[in-house]
Amino acid sequence: MSLIVMKFGGSSVADADKIKNVANRVIERARKNKVVVVVSAPGDMTDDLIELSRKVTDSPDDREMDMLISTGEQVSIALLTMAIKSCGVNAISLTGPQAGIYADTSHTKARITKIIPTKINNELSKGKVVIVAGFQGINPHEDITTLGRGGSDLTAVALAAALKSNECEIYTDVDGVYTTDPRVVKEAKKIPVVSYDEMLEMAGSGAQVMQGRSIEVAKKFGVKIHVRSSFKKTEGTSIMEEGSEVEEVVVRAVTFDKNQVKLSILDIPDRPGIASKIFGELAKESINVDMIIQSAARQKYNDISFTVARPDIKKTHNILNALKKTLGASGVIVDDTVAKVSIVGVGMKSHPGVASTMFNALAKKGINIEMISTSEIKISCVIKAADIEKAVATLHRAFELEKK
Amino acid sequence: MSLIVMKFGGSSVADADKIKNVANRVIERARKNKVVVVVSAPGDMTDDLIELSRKVTDSPDDREMDMLISTGEQVSIALLTMAIKSCGVNAISLTGPQAGIYADTSHTKARITKIIPTKINNELSKGKVVIVAGFQGINPHEDITTLGRGGSDLTAVALAAALKSNECEIYTDVDGVYTTDPRVVKEAKKIPVVSYDEMLEMAGSGAQVMQGRSIEVAKKFGVKIHVRSSFKKTEGTSIMEEGSEVEEVVVRAVTFDKNQVKLSILDIPDRPGIASKIFGELAKESINVDMIIQSAARQKYNDISFTVARPDIKKTHNILNALKKTLGASGVIVDDTVAKVSIVGVGMKSHPGVASTMFNALAKKGINIEMISTSEIKISCVIKAADIEKAVATLHRAFELEKK
Repeated sequence: MSLIVMKFGGSSVADADKIKNVANRVIERARKNKVVVVVSAPGDMTDDLIELSRKVTDSPDDREMDMLISTGEQVSIALLTMAIKSCGVNAISLTGPQAGIYADTSHTKARITKIIPTKINNELSKGKVVIVAGFQGINPHEDITTLGRGGSDLTAVALAAALKSNECEIYTDVDGVYTTDPRVVKEAKKIPVVSYDEMLEMAGSGAQVMQGRSIEVAKKFGVKIHVRSSFKKTEGTSIMEEGSEVEEVVVRAVTFDKNQVKLSILDIPDRPGIASKIFGELAKESINVDMIIQSAARQKYNDISFTVARPDIKKTHNILNALKKTLGASGVIVDDTVAKVSIVGVGMKSHPGVASTMFNALAKKGINIEMISTSEIKISCVIKAADIEKAVATLHRAFELEKK
Repeated sequence: MSLIVMKFGGSSVADADKIKNVANRVIERARKNKVVVVVSAPGDMTDDLIELSRKVTDSPDDREMDMLISTGEQVSIALLTMAIKSCGVNAISLTGPQAGIYADTSHTKARITKIIPTKINNELSKGKVVIVAGFQGINPHEDITTLGRGGSDLTAVALAAALKSNECEIYTDVDGVYTTDPRVVKEAKKIPVVSYDEMLEMAGSGAQVMQGRSIEVAKKFGVKIHVRSSFKKTEGTSIMEEGSEVEEVVVRAVTFDKNQVKLSILDIPDRPGIASKIFGELAKESINVDMIIQSAARQKYNDISFTVARPDIKKTHNILNALKKTLGASGVIVDDTVAKVSIVGVGMKSHPGVASTMFNALAKKGINIEMISTSEIKISCVIKAADIEKAVATLHRAFELEKK
């Protein structure tokens, strides 16, 4: 009897009826498999708790924030376990700490350090379905910690690895990973199988289905992920190692990210250590820089432009303004009217000409490219935000993704 | 620096402003004392969670119910600790299990078996205020359990005992214990000091300030309790061992209980084992019987009447109906128009004539007594519910409690 890990997000357990629906999905699986279920907090509960804490203080303590928000998943596991047991199927809920999920001491965004699944295995061997609270663990001080955004996916994938499970099913409110967002391009097709690396690049370039961290862990431990709908029974998208099961295509998907802002610092002297100075200061403030270009506008002077996520705009602007004097720059420009469009596919590695197809397609539609960055299996362009939907549709058609 | 345990009920932490108020009360105390705080779940949160569980299933599992409702206190401790820390006072929250509160395996109404306050003492020695979740503990299976109604008071008193604290302060929405309910008799006076035994009898006969279990534990370990208002700074009521500090009065208070129902089983044969049979069956169903009278109505036949709490009426009626045939009784009567009025006072032991004063006072007002029960320091009468307010006012005046 093989073991399956099923993970349900907050929207899948948002109310009593949805919890009963999840219970049914779990019970169905439990007929043929040992089952471990990971659940997130119901609906908006985490946000509501955070809002409540803001009414108490502007600067909530991180340890106490974890104590507070970890209650959300505890509510979900209790309700789901009740629902399953009331159908006559034996089950037990475990908090992250009870499940043996150990994490480091960085509150609100801890990393899992190890999993000791003794208790889970004991309960499984008694024939129980085990329901584990996602998003949380216990640190060396025996404090409750939370794992940050996408933490429940991470719990599920890490548990699947620790329990040597065949498959980790991620149930969500979409029914799989698409060639692009179907709300933008209605011809978008569901992708049956995608490689870890492609999914990683897609997550990094705007696809919201799963966080990069979970996919990295899945790749590291060879956990096969199946992203599928909580509400429909159709097959979703499998995420696995490149190889025979993953059809090699040149371009798998078009992704986009409207959450980008471009900043430029102008006319800085062209001498060693300047870039290191700028990006060192940003790193100190934990600001994640995405794309960078350096252009020699005039002799001996450079412009440096880069993109950051929208919420970091103010912090970044302040740092650049402070650096302006030190570096002898002539100015700082913030452009929040940009967006990023990307194409991702493992086949790119062996197919030259993909970049030029992309640039041509955009040019033909009169879309100007402001920045370009590439990896082995991804090409991203920063363009005007106003053009983003046209660009996505254009590229989706240019690479014939609607025909897959 | 002596240690004080402060306990705040749910109404004291019902919203952000009230939590900030509690934080201020705690900080004030923490200037001169080591402080351990016990908190209940905010406002109606426990009831809301129970209601949510009822939407998921009619028969929620007890272990999972504890997993669910224990989140309420966890929310309170996190918010209160944030509030205290944001004022620059060091503090840490601990769940019942983290605080070393061990309980037995009876979910939803567990008993505390032991307290190992190592973690609490460590944190206190670092100069922190320690905020402990009331109402919960950990059982030998390492499951979270809850302690039933009044559980947070119990946590506070038991912690005070384990930590050898001088005093346990119970903060609530009333400002102390009164000679009777001030909503019924507006001349009711706050009682400055009351003995454990009196408070136990008062709790058992309708006073709602504290549960009997907590007072028993306080008496056993000699923990002095101070019941006082969360919102006013005035002194409340101290509960302690009889002795020099407790002024000996004949009658300390008049209490009443409208939550009683009288049941009678008629014309049962007068032979040994009948009462044992009836009350054995009720005990099996965990029905708590309060007053009992047996009257020889005719030769060889008895009527047995007793009172139970209103929520048990249906279960009790069913049991009596089932017994009717077995015992050869002629009928079963349910009377839900009764209530109980009691007088409580340690001085009764040495002052004869208290009962007759009580019966006379009621008789003069035309109030008929249906059942009587007495202890060393309490006399209770069952009367018509319609007469209860008149009876309370009459007895309050008869024993001159308004003059105290």
